[in-house]
This record gives sequence, structure tokens and C-alpha cells, in this order.
Amino acid sequence: MAATHLYLTGIKPTGDFHLGNYIGALRPALEAVQSTPTAYFIADYHALNTVKDADELRHSIRSGAATWLACGLDPERTLFYRQSDVPEIFELTTILGSMTPKGLMNRAHAYKAARDRNNEAGITDLDAGVNMGLFNYPILMAADILAMEATHVPVGRDQSQHIEYTADIAGYFNHRYGDGSDGYTFPIPKGVIDDSDASILPGTDGRKMSKSYDNHIPLFLPEKKLRKAINKIPTDSTPVEDPKDPDASVPFQLLTHFASEAKTAEVRKRLEAGGMGWGDLKKELFEAVNAVLSPQRDRYEELMADPAQIDRILAAGVEPARERARATLARVRSAIGVG
Amino acid sequence: MAATHLYLTGIKPTGDFHLGNYIGALRPALEAVQSTPTAYFIADYHALNTVKDADELRHSIRSGAATWLACGLDPERTLFYRQSDVPEIFELTTILGSMTPKGLMNRAHAYKAARDRNNEAGITDLDAGVNMGLFNYPILMAADILAMEATHVPVGRDQSQHIEYTADIAGYFNHRYGDGSDGYTFPIPKGVIDDSDASILPGTDGRKMSKSYDNHIPLFLPEKKLRKAINKIPTDSTPVEDPKDPDASVPFQLLTHFASEAKTAEVRKRLEAGGMGWGDLKKELFEAVNAVLSPQRDRYEELMADPAQIDRILAAGVEPARERARATLARVRSAIGVG
Repeated sequence: MAATHLYLTGIKPTGDFHLGNYIGALRPALEAVQSTPTAYFIADYHALNTVKDADELRHSIRSGAATWLACGLDPERTLFYRQSDVPEIFELTTILGSMTPKGLMNRAHAYKAARDRNNEAGITDLDAGVNMGLFNYPILMAADILAMEATHVPVGRDQSQHIEYTADIAGYFNHRYGDGSDGYTFPIPKGVIDDSDASILPGTDGRKMSKSYDNHIPLFLPEKKLRKAINKIPTDSTPVEDPKDPDASVPFQLLTHFASEAKTAEVRKRLEAGGMGWGDLKKELFEAVNAVLSPQRDRYEELMADPAQIDRILAAGVEPARERARATLARVRSAIGVG
Repeated sequence: MAATHLYLTGIKPTGDFHLGNYIGALRPALEAVQSTPTAYFIADYHALNTVKDADELRHSIRSGAATWLACGLDPERTLFYRQSDVPEIFELTTILGSMTPKGLMNRAHAYKAARDRNNEAGITDLDAGVNMGLFNYPILMAADILAMEATHVPVGRDQSQHIEYTADIAGYFNHRYGDGSDGYTFPIPKGVIDDSDASILPGTDGRKMSKSYDNHIPLFLPEKKLRKAINKIPTDSTPVEDPKDPDASVPFQLLTHFASEAKTAEVRKRLEAGGMGWGDLKKELFEAVNAVLSPQRDRYEELMADPAQIDRILAAGVEPARERARATLARVRSAIGVG
């Protein structure tokens, strides 16, 4: 059905982004735009499972959109839309639910993690605090992907189950409705798993940068605060004049993701030779991060100062996205007997 | 918000209707149209949980619509639409899911009944055969009701939990989003429970008429088959000339629902006096049922012979139904922060 490839990326607009998101998700995804047809969507109804305040959600949607736009997402070259602007996705969710076994959802990682947390906290009702949005999340995600007939979904290694589930759910549908006079067959999407080290940025404590570890540096900190955050990265007390092991140093690891190869090689040499202190290294790191991010920070600030501009860009994505979803849904409705 | 009353009735289009549906649901609901604003919808996505064949679903949708139209539903006086024609319902389902605790669904009757059946059959995986459509059913039903801002929902006594759940889910939403500058408050719907004996028709074995007891007589049987079905109702071997107890007789119970009061009183007298046989009683019953149903059967046959006519009537309901749902959803989207 879908003759061409489409790479689809969902953006969960919860809170602000950090440097790890930039290196692990934004930069590689935006580089991919160069070579393949892509679509990006703000998954605002996924966010609704956790964001309970209307103003906070409204801010997060705009902030998420502005972040991607500032980092180079070009809505002229890629499909860019909000999930909540494509009602076909929710109708498809309802349809897919009717053929998704509950047992599949019982085994979903995010749901099981919530139960494990309750269990560890000694809460006997393991479903305590679990809402149906969390439980249904894999079906909504399948609808996100299948409505657009996406063929490839870039995901982190820890999200590969979602793609497997989408393939399973598409398979249930295809098995039941793939034949027949009005039959329809979903293309089975593939996960594109980037598990290269290049996409994993360490946090200030050396573990993977993550909000849940509280070891992250926000993406669009003003210069002064960025410098301060970098200066606060813990280092050991090796004297300035001593040789240092770059590969055991968090600031150096961070530098490799932002500085040029030449700069990285030069700093490596200076550290190994001795005579370069942690303070010097952090200064190099600040310069490198700031050089990469300051034009994008400026663009982000500019967009956030003019929310109507963000809204206009998102509004422009509604029709192209719905056109695609509408075509899928018309075929699905006909295949199941309601169209 | 909704200033006026609206009585909403969902019609699950699974298979053909029987006499018990007519007495228990269609006739009382259609009498109510006289006095209150009403809406009826064909719940085709509910049916999708069990009807897995496209042609069967297509037939059931038309047959369900034709049955209600034949029995007197007047689309000029009442809102009449298909659930699957109102996409706002499915978006609202997604929104409501994000604030519905999973624990509520765990306790839903239909889901628990499915688990009990597995348990009794010795199946250790109690979720075997349960699909997410069944598990999510109460959320979809809440969205059906709340999207239309229905204030009253006529239900059988065994379905009162659904209305309680809808009120609960509306309450979660109202609690979180009822205040604030863009706040929105759902009207809390009331169940209208008809548990009078007048709405319970006995089946051929004396228990409530139900497909699951296999004691039902289809609603639109051709005359000959209707006569045959009535003649096959079991009776005891009391001789013709003996007095009989009308209240212990299934055919007489059925007669009270279809014949006039005068006719019912006359037959009661004849049975109590002796000299009236079961055959005579069944003849009276056939005449009474056939007199009530034959014009409606003719209209049903006429509609089913011209599916395009049914489709036109259903198409006419799309815009008025969506207009109402769209207005609700616009307020909901604004309240949660996506609109």
C-alpha cells in the first residue's frame, strides 16, 4: 500500500529538553532528514498521562515544537504535526483495541515497571496510580505509526518493545482483514535502533544523562548558567600539572560530542601530557557546547517569545498529516465493514 | 453547560433482534421520544469486539438501523447516527483514558464475567480471549455519553454499572479541569433504569427472553414461522375442558404484552373458566403478536431490500451528531491544554 518509505518520530512534550536528548535524539534524527522522507509529531496525548495542568501542557507542546524547530527541523522538508490534530489516530486506536489481546498489554514494559515500583514500595494494589492511558499506550503508539503507514521508526534500544507491539497489532489486523474484496494490509513497520555510543551522552555523574537520574544539563540554558552547570561537573583532585586519562573524564566525554575532531585530539594530548587542569577542560567544554547551541538557543528564545508563530507552523501540518491518515482510515473502515 | 435534557440510547448491532428486545428496549424507548429530546446511535465499534467479519458487521449495522426505523424511530424527531461517524467520540475516549484508573476497569462486570468464564472452564490465564476493546468498553461508553452531553441514559438494571462508571470518569475530569480560566464541566448523566415487569418478556421456557438462553423468538419472523415458533412454546397436558391458571402460563404472559387490555381480560376469563385449550391460547397469541408486528415487519423488509435508503438516513445524522460532539470536544480540548 505505502509504496515509499517514511521515517516517523514521536516527540513527547514533557518538560524541557537536555543535552542528552540533543545528542541522542534530536541531532541524529535531524541528520536523517537529509536522506529519507520523515515525519515528526508532538505526542501531546501521550503527555496527558502525566501532565495534569492545562497551562503546563500548552507550554510543553510549544516548547517541544520550538526545540525541534530551533535545532533545524524544517517543516518545508518534513511532515511536522501534533498528534491531537489528527483525529483519525484515535479512531484507529479504538479499532485496533478490538483486536489486541489484553495479555499483550499486561506484558508491556512501561506498565510492568509501574507495577514493580508499587511492589517495591510495599503497595499491595499493584495497579495503584496506573491510569488507562499508560495501559493503552502501546495501542495508541501503534495507531500513531500505522495511521501514517510509517515504515521505519527510530527508537532507543529500550523502546524496541513498542515497535514489536506495533508489528504484532498490525499483524492481528492483517490476519483478519488482509484478504477479502475490500481487504487492507498495513505495512509492518521496522524499528531503527541506534545503539551506537555516539548517541549516548553521559550525565554529570557519568551515567547516561537522564532527568530521572538528576544528572542532566538543560539544553537551552542561558550562557552564564550553562557555564555554571559545566563548572559544577564533579572531577577528582588530580593536580593541574599531572597527566590525566581523558577517557575516564566526564567533561572530556562530553567534549567529544560537541567539539570538532581536531579540537578533541588537541585536548586529549594536553590532558595526557599533563599541565591542563579540570578548569581548563571545562572552559573548552563550555566553548564547544555554547558554539554548537547558541544559534539554536537564540532561535528557540525567538520562537517562544512569539507562540503564535509556533502555532501557525503546527497548524500548517494539520492538513498534510490528516490527508495521509484519512486515506489509511478510509481503507481500514472499508476492510472492517463500517466504511 | 448542557442546558437541556437529552436521553441517549446505544444500539449494539449484533445479530437480529427478538421479541424480548422489542418489549424491553425498542417499544419503551420509542414511547419516550414523545416526551423528551432523544438520541439513538448504532454502536458499531462496540460490535467490533465480537463481530469479526466485515460483511456481517455491515449487515448488522443496517439491520439494527432498519429495525429501529421500522419500529417507529423517526429521524426527523430524534438524533439518529452511527458511532463510527463521530470521530470526536474516539478522541474523547483517548482523553478520558488518561485520567481513568486501571483499577476501575479491573472491576467492570463484563470483564470480570469473561474472567469468571475462563476460571470455570479451567483456563489458568484468566485474560485469555479478552481483547482490549472489551477491557476499554466502559471508557468508550463514557465517551459516547459525554461527547453528546447526554443527561439521561435508559438502561437495563444489569447495565447500571456502566452509568456509574461514566459518572465516575466525568467526575475525574471535572475534578481536574472543572475550574480554571478555560475550565469545563461535564454534566453528570443519570441512568434511567426501567425495572418494571412491563419491560421483561419471558422466553419460551419462562425465563427472561434472551439469546444466551436460546429461548427467544426473532422479532421479524415471517408469519408462518412466527406461528410455528409460538406453537412450539412448551405447555403442560391439562385437558382442554379444565380450568387453567393464566399467571402460570408462558403464552398468556406473552399475550399480556401484545394484546389489548380487553382482549387480555377476555382470554384470562376463558382460561380460568375451562374450555379453552393451549392451542386456542396460542392462536390468540399469534394474532396479537402478528397484529402488532406485521406493519413493522413490512417496513423492515422494505428497508432491507434497499440498503441505500438506510445509508442515506444514517448519513443525514452525521452532521447534527458531529456538531454536538464537536462543540463538546472544543471545550474539552481547551480545558486540558491542547486546544
